[in-house]
Amino acid sequence: MVSVVILGAGNVATHLFKAFSNTNQAVVIQWYNRNLNALKSYKTSVEITDDLSQLKEADLYILAVSDDAIKPLSSLLPFENRLVAHTSGSVSLYDIDKKHKRGVFYPLQSFSKSADINFADVPVCIEALKSDDYHVLKNLAIAIGSPTKKVNSDQRKVLHLAAVFVNNFTNQLYRIAHEITESEGAEFDVLKPLILETAKKVQDLSPYMAQTGPAKRNDKKTLRKHLKLLKDPHHKDIYNLLTSSIQRTHGRKKL
Amino acid sequence: MVSVVILGAGNVATHLFKAFSNTNQAVVIQWYNRNLNALKSYKTSVEITDDLSQLKEADLYILAVSDDAIKPLSSLLPFENRLVAHTSGSVSLYDIDKKHKRGVFYPLQSFSKSADINFADVPVCIEALKSDDYHVLKNLAIAIGSPTKKVNSDQRKVLHLAAVFVNNFTNQLYRIAHEITESEGAEFDVLKPLILETAKKVQDLSPYMAQTGPAKRNDKKTLRKHLKLLKDPHHKDIYNLLTSSIQRTHGRKKL
Ligand SMILES: NC(=O)c1ccc[n+]([C@@H]2O[C@H](COP(=O)([O-])OP(=O)(O)OC[C@H]3O[C@@H](n4cnc5c(N)ncnc54)[C@H](OP(=O)(O)O)[C@@H]3O)[C@@H](O)[C@H]2O)c1
Ligand SMILES: NC(=O)c1ccc[n+]([C@@H]2O[C@H](COP(=O)([O-])OP(=O)(O)OC[C@H]3O[C@@H](n4cnc5c(N)ncnc54)[C@H](OP(=O)(O)O)[C@@H]3O)[C@@H](O)[C@H]2O)c1
Repeated sequence: MVSVVILGAGNVATHLFKAFSNTNQAVVIQWYNRNLNALKSYKTSVEITDDLSQLKEADLYILAVSDDAIKPLSSLLPFENRLVAHTSGSVSLYDIDKKHKRGVFYPLQSFSKSADINFADVPVCIEALKSDDYHVLKNLAIAIGSPTKKVNSDQRKVLHLAAVFVNNFTNQLYRIAHEITESEGAEFDVLKPLILETAKKVQDLSPYMAQTGPAKRNDKKTLRKHLKLLKDPHHKDIYNLLTSSIQRTHGRKKL
Repeated sequence: MVSVVILGAGNVATHLFKAFSNTNQAVVIQWYNRNLNALKSYKTSVEITDDLSQLKEADLYILAVSDDAIKPLSSLLPFENRLVAHTSGSVSLYDIDKKHKRGVFYPLQSFSKSADINFADVPVCIEALKSDDYHVLKNLAIAIGSPTKKVNSDQRKVLHLAAVFVNNFTNQLYRIAHEITESEGAEFDVLKPLILETAKKVQDLSPYMAQTGPAKRNDKKTLRKHLKLLKDPHHKDIYNLLTSSIQRTHGRKKL
Protein backbone atom coordinates (compact mmCIF):
# COMPACT_ATOMS: atom_id res chain seq x y z
CA MET A 1 0.00 0.00 0.00
CA VAL A 2 1.58 3.24 -1.12
CA SER A 3 0.51 6.56 0.42
CA VAL A 4 0.24 9.44 -2.02
CA VAL A 5 -0.15 13.20 -1.83
CA ILE A 6 -1.43 14.77 -5.06
CA LEU A 7 -0.50 18.38 -5.88
CA GLY A 8 -2.57 20.20 -8.50
CA ALA A 9 -6.28 20.01 -9.31
CA GLY A 10 -6.35 19.95 -13.10
CA ASN A 11 -7.20 17.23 -15.62
CA VAL A 12 -4.42 14.84 -14.76
CA ALA A 13 -4.65 15.32 -10.97
CA THR A 14 -8.38 14.67 -11.02
CA HIS A 15 -8.18 11.51 -13.12
CA LEU A 16 -5.30 10.19 -11.03
CA PHE A 17 -7.19 10.87 -7.82
CA LYS A 18 -10.14 8.83 -9.09
CA ALA A 19 -7.92 6.00 -10.29
CA PHE A 20 -5.97 5.83 -7.00
CA SER A 21 -9.23 5.86 -5.05
CA ASN A 22 -10.38 2.79 -6.97
CA THR A 23 -7.47 0.58 -6.02
CA ASN A 24 -6.62 -0.73 -2.58
CA GLN A 25 -2.92 -0.72 -3.35
CA ALA A 26 -2.76 3.06 -3.00
CA VAL A 27 -4.28 5.65 -0.72
CA VAL A 28 -4.41 9.36 -1.36
CA ILE A 29 -3.84 10.81 2.09
CA GLN A 30 -3.97 14.46 1.05
CA TRP A 31 -4.72 16.64 -1.96
CA TYR A 32 -3.10 20.05 -2.34
CA ASN A 33 -3.98 22.90 -4.67
CA ARG A 34 -2.94 26.57 -4.44
CA ASN A 35 -6.58 27.39 -4.95
CA LEU A 36 -8.71 25.36 -2.55
CA ASN A 37 -11.95 26.05 -4.37
CA ALA A 38 -11.04 23.59 -7.11
CA LEU A 39 -10.93 20.81 -4.49
CA LYS A 40 -14.02 21.70 -2.46
CA SER A 41 -16.22 19.00 -3.99
CA TYR A 42 -13.76 16.32 -2.83
CA LYS A 43 -13.43 17.41 0.78
CA THR A 44 -15.59 14.61 2.13
CA SER A 45 -13.47 11.94 0.44
CA VAL A 46 -9.96 13.24 1.09
CA GLU A 47 -8.13 15.77 3.21
CA ILE A 48 -7.59 18.90 1.14
CA THR A 49 -5.21 21.78 1.70
CA ASP A 50 -3.81 24.92 0.08
CA ASP A 51 -0.97 25.22 2.58
CA LEU A 52 2.34 23.60 1.69
CA SER A 53 3.53 23.76 5.31
CA GLN A 54 0.67 21.38 6.23
CA LEU A 55 1.71 18.60 3.83
CA LYS A 56 1.72 15.17 5.45
CA GLU A 57 4.44 12.58 5.20
CA ALA A 58 3.79 10.19 2.31
CA ASP A 59 5.58 7.60 0.17
CA LEU A 60 5.03 9.67 -2.97
CA TYR A 61 4.19 13.26 -3.94
CA ILE A 62 2.75 13.65 -7.41
CA LEU A 63 3.19 17.08 -8.97
CA ALA A 64 0.34 17.15 -11.48
CA VAL A 65 0.70 20.88 -12.10
CA SER A 66 1.41 22.97 -15.19
CA ASP A 67 4.83 22.31 -16.72
CA ASP A 68 6.21 25.69 -15.64
CA ALA A 69 5.09 25.21 -12.06
CA ILE A 70 6.96 21.94 -11.53
CA LYS A 71 10.36 23.49 -10.81
CA PRO A 72 9.28 26.29 -8.42
CA LEU A 73 6.73 24.12 -6.61
CA SER A 74 9.23 21.31 -6.06
CA SER A 75 11.64 23.82 -4.44
CA LEU A 76 8.92 25.12 -2.16
CA LEU A 77 8.11 21.70 -0.73
CA PRO A 78 9.12 21.90 2.97
CA PHE A 79 10.85 18.51 3.18
CA GLU A 80 13.62 16.57 1.51
CA ASN A 81 14.70 13.06 0.56
CA ARG A 82 11.15 11.94 -0.24
CA LEU A 83 9.96 10.67 -3.61
CA VAL A 84 8.54 13.49 -5.76
CA ALA A 85 7.37 12.75 -9.33
CA HIS A 86 5.93 15.02 -11.98
CA THR A 87 3.51 13.93 -14.73
CA SER A 88 4.85 15.90 -17.70
CA GLY A 89 5.97 14.58 -21.07
CA SER A 90 8.35 17.40 -21.81
CA VAL A 91 9.81 18.60 -18.50
CA SER A 92 13.19 17.23 -17.41
CA LEU A 93 13.41 14.97 -14.39
CA TYR A 94 16.08 17.40 -13.17
CA ASP A 95 13.58 20.26 -12.97
CA ILE A 96 12.51 18.67 -9.70
CA ASP A 97 14.59 20.16 -6.90
CA LYS A 98 17.57 17.94 -6.12
CA LYS A 99 16.75 17.81 -2.43
CA HIS A 100 14.11 15.19 -3.36
CA LYS A 101 14.21 11.66 -4.68
CA ARG A 102 13.09 12.41 -8.21
CA GLY A 103 10.80 10.60 -10.63
CA VAL A 104 8.49 10.98 -13.59
CA PHE A 105 5.06 9.39 -13.92
CA TYR A 106 3.94 10.49 -17.40
CA PRO A 107 0.53 9.16 -18.47
CA LEU A 108 0.64 9.15 -22.27
CA GLN A 109 -2.97 10.00 -23.06
CA SER A 110 -5.11 13.01 -23.74
CA PHE A 111 -7.08 13.91 -20.62
CA SER A 112 -10.03 16.21 -20.36
CA LYS A 113 -11.97 16.71 -17.17
CA SER A 114 -15.36 15.77 -18.59
CA ALA A 115 -14.45 12.52 -20.36
CA ASP A 116 -14.01 9.34 -18.34
CA ILE A 117 -10.79 7.50 -18.91
CA ASN A 118 -9.93 3.84 -18.63
CA PHE A 119 -6.37 3.59 -17.31
CA ALA A 120 -5.89 0.35 -19.21
CA ASP A 121 -5.66 2.70 -22.22
CA VAL A 122 -3.10 4.97 -20.56
CA PRO A 123 0.48 3.76 -20.88
CA VAL A 124 2.47 5.30 -18.03
CA CYS A 125 6.03 6.25 -18.94
CA ILE A 126 8.22 5.98 -15.87
CA GLU A 127 11.59 7.46 -15.09
CA ALA A 128 13.50 7.46 -11.80
CA LEU A 129 17.09 7.76 -10.67
CA LYS A 130 16.93 4.91 -8.16
CA SER A 131 15.61 1.42 -8.65
CA ASP A 132 13.48 1.54 -5.45
CA ASP A 133 11.76 4.70 -6.61
CA TYR A 134 11.22 3.24 -10.06
CA HIS A 135 9.41 0.28 -8.50
CA VAL A 136 7.17 2.46 -6.35
CA LEU A 137 6.05 4.29 -9.50
CA LYS A 138 5.75 1.15 -11.54
CA ASN A 139 3.66 -0.67 -8.95
CA LEU A 140 1.37 2.30 -8.66
CA ALA A 141 0.78 2.30 -12.42
CA ILE A 142 0.12 -1.44 -12.35
CA ALA A 143 -2.31 -0.94 -9.46
CA ILE A 144 -4.48 1.36 -11.58
CA GLY A 145 -4.38 -1.09 -14.49
CA SER A 146 -2.02 0.84 -16.75
CA PRO A 147 0.63 -0.65 -18.98
CA THR A 148 4.02 0.75 -17.95
CA LYS A 149 7.05 1.72 -19.94
CA LYS A 150 10.51 2.53 -18.63
CA VAL A 151 11.77 5.50 -20.62
CA ASN A 152 14.67 7.86 -20.25
CA SER A 153 14.28 11.62 -20.63
CA ASP A 154 15.17 11.68 -24.33
CA GLN A 155 12.69 8.95 -25.11
CA ARG A 156 9.97 10.63 -23.06
CA LYS A 157 10.49 13.95 -24.83
CA VAL A 158 10.32 12.32 -28.22
CA LEU A 159 7.17 10.44 -27.22
CA HIS A 160 5.63 13.73 -26.16
CA LEU A 161 6.56 15.25 -29.51
CA ALA A 162 5.20 12.23 -31.38
CA ALA A 163 2.00 12.54 -29.33
CA VAL A 164 1.55 16.03 -30.76
CA PHE A 165 1.64 14.54 -34.26
CA VAL A 166 -0.82 11.71 -33.61
CA ASN A 167 -3.13 13.72 -31.36
CA ASN A 168 -3.10 17.49 -31.94
CA PHE A 169 -2.06 17.44 -35.61
CA THR A 170 -4.32 14.54 -36.47
CA ASN A 171 -7.19 16.32 -34.77
CA GLN A 172 -6.44 19.40 -36.89
CA LEU A 173 -6.73 17.26 -40.03
CA TYR A 174 -10.16 16.17 -38.76
CA ARG A 175 -10.95 19.85 -38.28
CA ILE A 176 -9.96 20.69 -41.87
CA ALA A 177 -12.09 17.79 -43.11
CA HIS A 178 -14.93 19.29 -41.08
CA GLU A 179 -14.39 22.70 -42.70
CA ILE A 180 -14.25 21.46 -46.28
CA THR A 181 -17.23 19.13 -45.99
CA GLU A 182 -19.47 21.71 -44.33
CA SER A 183 -18.50 24.30 -46.93
CA GLU A 184 -20.11 22.08 -49.59
CA GLY A 185 -23.11 21.06 -47.51
CA ALA A 186 -21.70 17.57 -47.06
CA GLU A 187 -21.69 16.02 -43.61
CA PHE A 188 -18.58 15.48 -41.53
CA ASP A 189 -20.44 12.67 -39.74
CA VAL A 190 -20.12 10.43 -42.80
CA LEU A 191 -16.35 10.43 -42.23
CA LYS A 192 -16.46 9.21 -38.65
CA PRO A 193 -16.30 5.47 -39.37
CA LEU A 194 -13.29 6.09 -41.63
CA ILE A 195 -11.59 8.11 -38.88
CA LEU A 196 -11.99 5.20 -36.47
CA GLU A 197 -10.93 2.60 -39.02
CA THR A 198 -7.77 4.58 -39.84
CA ALA A 199 -6.79 4.58 -36.17
CA LYS A 200 -7.70 0.89 -35.72
CA LYS A 201 -5.70 -0.18 -38.75
CA VAL A 202 -2.35 0.87 -37.26
CA GLN A 203 -3.01 -1.05 -34.05
CA ASP A 204 -1.83 -4.19 -35.92
CA LEU A 205 -0.25 -2.86 -39.10
CA SER A 206 2.60 -0.36 -39.42
CA PRO A 207 1.55 3.04 -40.77
CA TYR A 208 3.87 2.31 -43.69
CA MET A 209 1.94 -0.83 -44.61
CA ALA A 210 -1.43 0.79 -43.94
CA GLN A 211 -0.94 3.65 -46.40
CA THR A 212 -3.16 3.88 -49.53
CA GLY A 213 -4.60 6.64 -51.69
CA PRO A 214 -3.75 9.01 -54.52
CA ALA A 215 -0.50 10.37 -53.04
CA LYS A 216 1.00 6.93 -52.58
CA ARG A 217 -0.24 5.79 -56.03
CA ASN A 218 1.00 9.08 -57.50
CA ASP A 219 -2.43 9.42 -59.15
CA LYS A 220 -1.78 12.81 -60.72
CA LYS A 221 -5.30 13.26 -62.04
CA THR A 222 -6.88 12.92 -58.59
CA LEU A 223 -4.16 15.07 -56.97
CA ARG A 224 -4.92 17.84 -59.48
CA LYS A 225 -8.67 17.54 -58.95
CA HIS A 226 -8.23 17.78 -55.20
CA LEU A 227 -6.02 20.86 -55.37
CA LYS A 228 -8.62 22.50 -57.59
CA LEU A 229 -11.39 21.70 -55.11
CA LEU A 230 -9.51 23.23 -52.17
CA LYS A 231 -10.38 26.91 -51.89
CA ASP A 232 -8.33 27.88 -48.83
CA PRO A 233 -4.63 28.40 -49.70
CA HIS A 234 -3.61 27.08 -46.26
CA HIS A 235 -5.47 23.86 -46.94
CA LYS A 236 -3.68 23.63 -50.30
CA ASP A 237 -0.32 24.05 -48.52
CA ILE A 238 -1.16 21.23 -46.13
CA TYR A 239 -2.37 19.04 -49.00
CA ASN A 240 0.86 19.62 -50.92
CA LEU A 241 3.15 19.13 -47.96
CA LEU A 242 1.55 15.91 -46.72
CA THR A 243 1.27 14.54 -50.25
CA SER A 244 4.98 15.04 -50.81
CA SER A 245 5.70 13.61 -47.37
CA ILE A 246 3.80 10.43 -48.34
CA GLN A 247 5.65 10.32 -51.66
CA ARG A 248 8.98 10.73 -49.93
CA THR A 249 8.14 7.83 -47.59
CA HIS A 250 6.95 5.63 -50.43
CA GLY A 251 9.71 6.52 -52.86
CA ARG A 252 7.79 8.75 -55.29
CA LYS A 253 8.89 12.05 -56.70
CA LYS A 254 7.67 15.32 -55.23
CA LEU A 255 4.45 16.83 -56.64
CA MET B 1 -34.46 -9.38 -54.46
CA VAL B 2 -32.09 -7.46 -56.69
CA SER B 3 -29.87 -9.28 -59.18
CA VAL B 4 -26.36 -7.89 -59.50
CA VAL B 5 -23.43 -8.32 -61.85
CA ILE B 6 -20.11 -7.17 -60.39
CA LEU B 7 -17.35 -5.95 -62.71
CA GLY B 8 -13.81 -5.79 -61.35
CA ALA B 9 -11.99 -8.07 -58.92
CA GLY B 10 -10.14 -5.64 -56.66
CA ASN B 11 -10.61 -4.64 -53.03
CA VAL B 12 -14.02 -3.09 -53.36
CA ALA B 13 -15.42 -5.72 -55.73
CA THR B 14 -14.31 -8.52 -53.42
CA HIS B 15 -15.78 -6.99 -50.26
CA LEU B 16 -19.04 -6.17 -52.04
CA PHE B 17 -19.29 -9.71 -53.39
CA LYS B 18 -18.97 -11.10 -49.87
CA ALA B 19 -21.47 -8.64 -48.45
CA PHE B 20 -24.04 -9.31 -51.20
CA SER B 21 -23.59 -13.05 -50.71
CA ASN B 22 -24.51 -12.65 -47.05
CA THR B 23 -27.90 -11.06 -47.62
CA ASN B 24 -30.95 -12.68 -49.16
CA GLN B 25 -32.12 -9.38 -50.59
CA ALA B 26 -29.48 -9.50 -53.30
CA VAL B 27 -27.99 -12.15 -55.54
CA VAL B 28 -24.78 -11.85 -57.53
CA ILE B 29 -25.63 -13.68 -60.73
CA GLN B 30 -22.28 -13.09 -62.43
CA TRP B 31 -18.83 -11.70 -61.73
CA TYR B 32 -16.73 -10.22 -64.52
CA ASN B 33 -13.06 -9.38 -64.60
CA ARG B 34 -10.84 -8.74 -67.63
CA ASN B 35 -8.41 -11.16 -66.06
CA LEU B 36 -10.23 -14.34 -65.06
CA ASN B 37 -7.43 -15.59 -62.85
CA ALA B 38 -8.33 -13.12 -60.14
CA LEU B 39 -11.79 -14.74 -59.89
CA LYS B 40 -10.79 -18.40 -60.08
CA SER B 41 -11.17 -19.05 -56.37
CA TYR B 42 -14.82 -17.96 -56.51
CA LYS B 43 -15.89 -20.05 -59.48
CA THR B 44 -17.77 -22.57 -57.36
CA SER B 45 -19.89 -19.87 -55.71
CA VAL B 46 -20.71 -17.65 -58.68
CA GLU B 47 -20.59 -17.66 -62.47
CA ILE B 48 -17.42 -15.91 -63.56
CA THR B 49 -16.50 -14.46 -66.95
CA ASP B 50 -13.91 -12.35 -68.74
CA ASP B 51 -16.13 -11.86 -71.78
CA LEU B 52 -18.31 -8.75 -71.88
CA SER B 53 -20.47 -10.22 -74.65
CA GLN B 54 -21.52 -12.98 -72.21
CA LEU B 55 -22.90 -10.62 -69.55
CA LYS B 56 -26.30 -11.67 -68.26
CA GLU B 57 -29.30 -9.46 -67.79
CA ALA B 58 -29.43 -8.04 -64.26
CA ASP B 59 -31.10 -5.28 -62.24
CA LEU B 60 -27.75 -3.66 -61.51
CA TYR B 61 -24.19 -3.67 -62.86
CA ILE B 62 -21.57 -2.49 -60.38
CA LEU B 63 -18.38 -1.13 -61.94
CA ALA B 64 -15.88 -1.64 -59.11
CA VAL B 65 -12.89 -0.97 -61.35
CA SER B 66 -10.08 1.59 -61.29
CA ASP B 67 -11.28 5.16 -61.70
CA ASP B 68 -9.84 5.51 -65.19
CA ALA B 69 -11.49 2.31 -66.38
CA ILE B 70 -15.02 3.39 -65.50
CA LYS B 71 -15.64 5.46 -68.61
CA PRO B 72 -14.24 3.09 -71.26
CA LEU B 73 -15.69 -0.01 -69.63
CA SER B 74 -19.16 1.52 -69.37
CA SER B 75 -19.07 2.28 -73.11
CA LEU B 76 -18.05 -1.27 -73.94
CA LEU B 77 -21.03 -2.81 -72.13
CA PRO B 78 -23.10 -4.46 -74.88
CA PHE B 79 -26.52 -3.30 -73.69
CA GLU B 80 -28.35 -0.12 -72.84
CA ASN B 81 -31.00 1.33 -70.55
CA ARG B 82 -29.95 -0.81 -67.60
CA LEU B 83 -28.76 0.48 -64.23
CA VAL B 84 -24.96 0.83 -64.11
CA ALA B 85 -23.28 2.26 -61.01
CA HIS B 86 -19.63 2.91 -60.22
CA THR B 87 -18.08 2.89 -56.73
CA SER B 88 -15.69 5.83 -56.98
CA GLY B 89 -15.51 8.89 -54.74
CA SER B 90 -14.00 11.18 -57.34
CA VAL B 91 -15.34 10.11 -60.74
CA SER B 92 -18.35 11.95 -62.16
CA LEU B 93 -21.67 10.16 -62.56
CA TYR B 94 -21.53 11.36 -66.15
CA ASP B 95 -18.41 9.34 -66.88
CA ILE B 96 -20.75 6.39 -67.19
CA ASP B 97 -21.90 6.12 -70.81
CA LYS B 98 -25.22 7.87 -71.31
CA LYS B 99 -26.79 4.82 -72.94
CA HIS B 100 -27.20 3.47 -69.39
CA LYS B 101 -29.28 4.41 -66.37
CA ARG B 102 -26.51 5.86 -64.27
CA GLY B 103 -25.73 5.74 -60.58
CA VAL B 104 -22.99 5.92 -57.96
CA PHE B 105 -22.59 3.54 -55.02
CA TYR B 106 -19.57 4.97 -53.17
CA PRO B 107 -18.60 3.09 -50.00
CA LEU B 108 -16.78 5.65 -47.87
CA GLN B 109 -14.24 3.44 -46.16
CA SER B 110 -10.71 2.25 -46.65
CA PHE B 111 -10.73 -1.28 -48.04
CA SER B 112 -7.87 -3.68 -48.22
CA LYS B 113 -8.24 -7.23 -49.42
CA SER B 114 -6.82 -8.86 -46.32
CA ALA B 115 -8.79 -7.01 -43.63
CA ASP B 116 -12.38 -7.98 -42.93
CA ILE B 117 -14.87 -5.19 -43.03
CA ASN B 118 -18.16 -4.70 -41.24
CA PHE B 119 -20.49 -2.87 -43.61
CA ALA B 120 -22.23 -1.25 -40.64
CA ASP B 121 -19.06 0.89 -40.57
CA VAL B 122 -19.24 1.72 -44.26
CA PRO B 123 -21.50 4.66 -45.09
CA VAL B 124 -22.58 4.28 -48.71
CA CYS B 125 -22.92 7.58 -50.59
CA ILE B 126 -25.55 7.23 -53.27
CA GLU B 127 -26.25 9.25 -56.36
CA ALA B 128 -28.67 8.55 -59.21
CA LEU B 129 -30.52 10.52 -61.83
CA LYS B 130 -33.87 8.76 -61.35
CA SER B 131 -35.72 8.08 -58.15
CA ASP B 132 -36.30 4.39 -59.00
CA ASP B 133 -32.59 3.84 -59.54
CA TYR B 134 -31.78 5.68 -56.35
CA HIS B 135 -34.03 3.31 -54.41
CA VAL B 136 -32.47 0.19 -55.92
CA LEU B 137 -29.06 1.41 -54.75
CA LYS B 138 -30.31 2.54 -51.38
CA ASN B 139 -32.11 -0.74 -50.66
CA LEU B 140 -29.01 -2.67 -51.61
CA ALA B 141 -26.92 -0.64 -49.15
CA ILE B 142 -29.51 -1.19 -46.43
CA ALA B 143 -29.53 -4.92 -47.21
CA ILE B 144 -25.81 -5.18 -46.40
CA GLY B 145 -26.28 -3.20 -43.19
CA SER B 146 -24.68 0.06 -44.32
CA PRO B 147 -25.85 3.52 -43.38
CA THR B 148 -26.72 5.41 -46.57
CA LYS B 149 -26.30 9.01 -47.57
CA LYS B 150 -27.78 10.76 -50.60
CA VAL B 151 -25.08 13.01 -51.98
CA ASN B 152 -24.69 14.98 -55.17
CA SER B 153 -21.47 14.91 -57.21
CA ASP B 154 -19.99 18.01 -55.56
CA GLN B 155 -20.63 16.64 -52.09
CA ARG B 156 -19.21 13.25 -53.01
CA LYS B 157 -16.04 14.78 -54.42
CA VAL B 158 -15.53 16.87 -51.33
CA LEU B 159 -16.11 13.83 -49.10
CA HIS B 160 -13.48 11.96 -51.09
CA LEU B 161 -11.07 14.86 -50.62
CA ALA B 162 -11.87 15.05 -46.91
CA ALA B 163 -11.30 11.29 -46.70
CA VAL B 164 -7.74 11.86 -47.92
CA PHE B 165 -7.18 14.23 -45.00
CA VAL B 166 -8.61 11.94 -42.31
CA ASN B 167 -7.22 8.73 -43.76
CA ASN B 168 -4.07 9.11 -45.90
CA PHE B 169 -2.74 12.30 -44.27
CA THR B 170 -3.56 11.15 -40.75
CA ASN B 171 -1.84 7.87 -41.48
CA GLN B 172 1.22 9.80 -42.64
CA LEU B 173 1.29 11.64 -39.30
CA TYR B 174 1.28 8.21 -37.63
CA ARG B 175 4.18 7.29 -39.91
CA ILE B 176 6.16 10.37 -38.89
CA ALA B 177 5.49 9.57 -35.23
CA HIS B 178 6.81 6.10 -35.98
CA GLU B 179 9.99 7.54 -37.54
CA ILE B 180 10.75 9.98 -34.75
CA THR B 181 10.10 7.54 -31.91
CA GLU B 182 12.19 4.75 -33.43
CA SER B 183 15.02 7.17 -34.13
CA GLU B 184 15.34 7.70 -30.35
CA GLY B 185 14.82 4.07 -29.41
CA ALA B 186 11.35 4.84 -28.08
CA GLU B 187 8.45 2.61 -29.05
CA PHE B 188 5.70 3.63 -31.44
CA ASP B 189 3.46 1.06 -29.69
CA VAL B 190 3.15 3.30 -26.64
CA LEU B 191 1.28 5.80 -28.83
CA LYS B 192 -1.39 3.37 -30.03
CA PRO B 193 -3.93 3.98 -27.25
CA LEU B 194 -3.61 7.73 -27.85
CA ILE B 195 -4.17 7.24 -31.59
CA LEU B 196 -7.39 5.36 -30.88
CA GLU B 197 -8.56 7.83 -28.25
CA THR B 198 -7.99 10.76 -30.62
CA ALA B 199 -10.22 9.11 -33.22
CA LYS B 200 -12.85 8.16 -30.63
CA LYS B 201 -13.01 11.64 -29.18
CA VAL B 202 -14.37 13.21 -32.38
CA GLN B 203 -17.14 10.63 -32.64
CA ASP B 204 -19.09 12.74 -30.13
CA LEU B 205 -17.17 16.01 -29.92
CA SER B 206 -16.33 18.37 -32.79
CA PRO B 207 -12.62 18.45 -33.71
CA TYR B 208 -12.72 22.11 -32.73
CA MET B 209 -13.83 21.26 -29.18
CA ALA B 210 -11.51 18.26 -28.96
CA GLN B 211 -8.30 20.22 -29.64
CA THR B 212 -5.66 20.56 -26.88
CA GLY B 213 -1.89 20.87 -26.75
CA PRO B 214 0.97 23.35 -27.09
CA ALA B 215 -0.10 24.87 -30.44
CA LYS B 216 -3.59 25.70 -29.19
CA ARG B 217 -2.23 27.01 -25.86
CA ASN B 218 0.49 28.90 -27.77
CA ASP B 219 3.01 27.37 -25.36
CA LYS B 220 6.09 28.88 -26.98
CA LYS B 221 8.57 27.08 -24.77
CA THR B 222 7.28 23.63 -25.76
CA LEU B 223 6.95 24.63 -29.43
CA ARG B 224 10.61 25.68 -29.42
CA LYS B 225 11.71 22.49 -27.66
CA HIS B 226 9.84 20.38 -30.21
CA LEU B 227 11.33 22.15 -33.20
CA LYS B 228 14.76 21.63 -31.72
CA LEU B 229 14.10 17.91 -31.25
CA LEU B 230 13.00 17.41 -34.87
CA LYS B 231 16.03 16.54 -36.99
CA ASP B 232 14.38 16.12 -40.40
CA PRO B 233 13.64 19.50 -42.08
CA HIS B 234 10.50 18.01 -43.68
CA HIS B 235 9.18 17.07 -40.26
CA LYS B 236 9.92 20.61 -39.09
CA ASP B 237 7.94 22.00 -42.04
CA ILE B 238 4.97 19.83 -41.15
CA TYR B 239 5.25 20.78 -37.49
CA ASN B 240 5.26 24.48 -38.37
CA LEU B 241 2.45 24.30 -40.89
CA LEU B 242 0.09 22.29 -38.69
CA THR B 243 0.91 24.37 -35.64
CA SER B 244 0.00 27.55 -37.48
CA SER B 245 -3.11 25.86 -38.87
CA ILE B 246 -4.23 25.07 -35.31
CA GLN B 247 -3.45 28.61 -34.24
CA ARG B 248 -5.42 30.03 -37.15
CA THR B 249 -8.40 27.86 -36.20
CA HIS B 250 -8.16 28.83 -32.54
CA GLY B 251 -7.42 32.51 -33.09
CA ARG B 252 -3.73 32.59 -32.18
CA LYS B 253 -0.99 34.35 -34.07
CA LYS B 254 1.26 32.47 -36.43
CA LEU B 255 4.44 30.91 -35.02
N1 LIG C 1 -3.87 17.13 -20.03
C1 LIG C 1 -3.25 16.11 -20.54
O1 LIG C 1 -3.78 15.49 -21.47
C2 LIG C 1 -1.90 15.67 -20.01
C3 LIG C 1 -1.44 14.39 -20.38
C4 LIG C 1 -0.21 13.94 -19.87
C5 LIG C 1 0.54 14.76 -19.04
N2 LIG C 1 0.09 16.02 -18.71
C6 LIG C 1 0.92 16.83 -17.81
O2 LIG C 1 0.32 16.83 -16.51
C7 LIG C 1 0.56 18.10 -15.86
C8 LIG C 1 -0.77 18.74 -15.48
O3 LIG C 1 -1.54 18.91 -16.66
P1 LIG C 1 -3.11 19.20 -16.62
O4 LIG C 1 -3.62 18.99 -17.98
O5 LIG C 1 -3.71 18.46 -15.48
O6 LIG C 1 -3.09 20.77 -16.32
P2 LIG C 1 -4.33 21.71 -15.93
O7 LIG C 1 -5.61 21.00 -16.09
O8 LIG C 1 -4.09 23.00 -16.64
O9 LIG C 1 -4.08 21.97 -14.36
C9 LIG C 1 -2.91 22.61 -13.92
C10 LIG C 1 -2.86 22.60 -12.40
O10 LIG C 1 -1.60 23.17 -12.03
C11 LIG C 1 -1.85 24.16 -11.02
N3 LIG C 1 -0.83 25.20 -11.12
C12 LIG C 1 -0.52 25.96 -12.20
N4 LIG C 1 0.49 26.82 -11.89
C13 LIG C 1 0.79 26.59 -10.58
C14 LIG C 1 1.73 27.14 -9.69
N5 LIG C 1 2.58 28.10 -10.09
N6 LIG C 1 1.78 26.65 -8.42
C15 LIG C 1 0.95 25.69 -8.03
N7 LIG C 1 0.04 25.11 -8.83
C16 LIG C 1 -0.04 25.56 -10.08
C17 LIG C 1 -3.22 24.70 -11.36
O11 LIG C 1 -3.72 25.30 -10.22
P3 LIG C 1 -5.07 26.22 -10.23
O12 LIG C 1 -6.20 25.24 -10.16
O13 LIG C 1 -4.92 27.07 -9.03
O14 LIG C 1 -5.00 26.99 -11.55
C18 LIG C 1 -3.96 23.44 -11.74
O15 LIG C 1 -4.45 22.77 -10.62
C19 LIG C 1 1.39 18.92 -16.84
O16 LIG C 1 2.76 18.72 -16.53
C20 LIG C 1 1.08 18.29 -18.18
O17 LIG C 1 2.13 18.47 -19.12
C21 LIG C 1 -1.12 16.48 -19.18
N1 LIG D 1 -9.93 0.72 -52.11
C1 LIG D 1 -10.72 1.55 -51.44
O1 LIG D 1 -10.52 1.74 -50.24
C2 LIG D 1 -11.88 2.23 -52.13
C3 LIG D 1 -12.86 2.83 -51.33
C4 LIG D 1 -13.96 3.43 -51.94
C5 LIG D 1 -14.06 3.44 -53.32
N2 LIG D 1 -13.08 2.89 -54.09
C6 LIG D 1 -13.26 2.93 -55.57
O2 LIG D 1 -13.65 1.62 -56.01
C7 LIG D 1 -13.10 1.37 -57.32
C8 LIG D 1 -12.24 0.13 -57.28
O3 LIG D 1 -11.20 0.34 -56.34
P1 LIG D 1 -10.35 -0.89 -55.77
O4 LIG D 1 -9.61 -0.39 -54.59
O5 LIG D 1 -11.21 -2.10 -55.64
O6 LIG D 1 -9.30 -1.08 -56.98
P2 LIG D 1 -8.26 -2.27 -57.19
O7 LIG D 1 -8.18 -3.15 -56.00
O8 LIG D 1 -7.03 -1.64 -57.72
O9 LIG D 1 -8.93 -3.12 -58.38
C9 LIG D 1 -9.16 -2.53 -59.62
C10 LIG D 1 -9.93 -3.47 -60.51
O10 LIG D 1 -10.21 -2.76 -61.73
C11 LIG D 1 -9.85 -3.60 -62.81
N3 LIG D 1 -9.46 -2.78 -63.96
C12 LIG D 1 -8.48 -1.82 -63.98
N4 LIG D 1 -8.41 -1.28 -65.20
C13 LIG D 1 -9.34 -1.90 -65.97
C14 LIG D 1 -9.76 -1.76 -67.33
N5 LIG D 1 -9.17 -0.88 -68.14
N6 LIG D 1 -10.76 -2.57 -67.74
C15 LIG D 1 -11.35 -3.45 -66.93
N7 LIG D 1 -11.01 -3.61 -65.64
C16 LIG D 1 -10.02 -2.84 -65.17
C17 LIG D 1 -8.70 -4.42 -62.30
O11 LIG D 1 -8.60 -5.56 -63.10
P3 LIG D 1 -7.32 -6.56 -63.01
O12 LIG D 1 -7.64 -7.48 -61.85
O13 LIG D 1 -7.33 -7.24 -64.32
O14 LIG D 1 -6.12 -5.68 -62.80
C18 LIG D 1 -9.15 -4.71 -60.88
O15 LIG D 1 -10.01 -5.83 -60.85
C19 LIG D 1 -12.35 2.64 -57.71
O16 LIG D 1 -13.24 3.47 -58.43
C20 LIG D 1 -12.03 3.28 -56.36
O17 LIG D 1 -11.89 4.69 -56.46
C21 LIG D 1 -12.00 2.28 -53.53
